[in-house]
Amino acid sequence: MTEPVASAEAAIRRRVDDAVKAVRVKDIDRIMSLYAPDLVAFDVVPPLQYVGANAYRQRWQETFAAFSGPIDYEVRDLQITAEGDLGFLHSLNHVKGTSVQGQKTEAWLRWTAGLRRIAGVWLFVHLHVSVPVDLASGRAALDLQPV
Amino acid sequence: MTEPVASAEAAIRRRVDDAVKAVRVKDIDRIMSLYAPDLVAFDVVPPLQYVGANAYRQRWQETFAAFSGPIDYEVRDLQITAEGDLGFLHSLNHVKGTSVQGQKTEAWLRWTAGLRRIAGVWLFVHLHVSVPVDLASGRAALDLQPV
Repeated sequence: MTEPVASAEAAIRRRVDDAVKAVRVKDIDRIMSLYAPDLVAFDVVPPLQYVGANAYRQRWQETFAAFSGPIDYEVRDLQITAEGDLGFLHSLNHVKGTSVQGQKTEAWLRWTAGLRRIAGVWLFVHLHVSVPVDLASGRAALDLQPV
Repeated sequence: MTEPVASAEAAIRRRVDDAVKAVRVKDIDRIMSLYAPDLVAFDVVPPLQYVGANAYRQRWQETFAAFSGPIDYEVRDLQITAEGDLGFLHSLNHVKGTSVQGQKTEAWLRWTAGLRRIAGVWLFVHLHVSVPVDLASGRAALDLQPV
C-alpha cells in the first residue's frame, strides 16, 4: 500500500517529535526504538562513523552522562522529503544544557537523517550531525547562529 | 512511470561519479548542473547552511581557488537508498591536494546527500559534508582514518 506523501511527511514529523522528546528526558530505550539495527551515524564527535545502532547507543549514553539534568533540545528549519517508504530530512538543532561540571553549554548543530518505513514503522537508517569547522585554525565553530 | 529501485540506484551512482569527476577537474558548471536550484547545503566550513545552489557555487569556487592543480577526490563505503523519485546516500570521501601555498593537505570527510528526480533528472537537493570535532578541545579531527 502506498501512503500519500503528506501522510508520510506527517508520520516522519511525529518520529522527529518522538526523538526530540526522548533526547530531552534522556530516554535511551525510546531513542533506540526509533533506529534501524543497521543505522549508520556520522556524529559531531569521532570516530568518522558509527556502524550499527548498538554502537550509537553508547554514544548517546556518554552524551546523557555529560549533562546534569535534562537537555534543552530544539529543531528549527525542519524540511522533510518523503515518497513511498523512503524519506530524508534536515534541520538546524539547538542543544543547550549544563555539564556535570556545572558549565552551561549550547550550540547549533546541523542535522540530516534518512528514514525507511520498515514493516509499517518509520525508522532512522542514517544520521549525520555536525558543526562547521574553520579549516585555517582547525577549530570547531561552536558559536554560530542561524541567520 | 515508476523506475525500478535498482535502476534508480544505478542512476544516482552515475550522478555521484559525475560529481566526483567534476570536483577532480574543478568543473564548476558541471557541478552546478547536478544541483537543484533550492539546494540546502551543510558544508565542512561556516556558515551553518548554504541556502540555494548559487550560494554554494561560491563555496566551490573558493575551494577550487585554494588548491593548486587538480583535486584527488575519492568516495568510499557509498550506500545508496532509493525509491520512486527519491533517494539518499552516504559515504566517506577522501580529499587530497596541494594548496596554492604549496602545502599538501588531505582529510576524510563524511558525505550525506538527498536527491530527487525532477523532470526525469536526478538532482542533489541536500548536501551535508563534515568532519568530526573534539568537543573538549574544540578542535576539528582532520587526521581520522576509516576503520
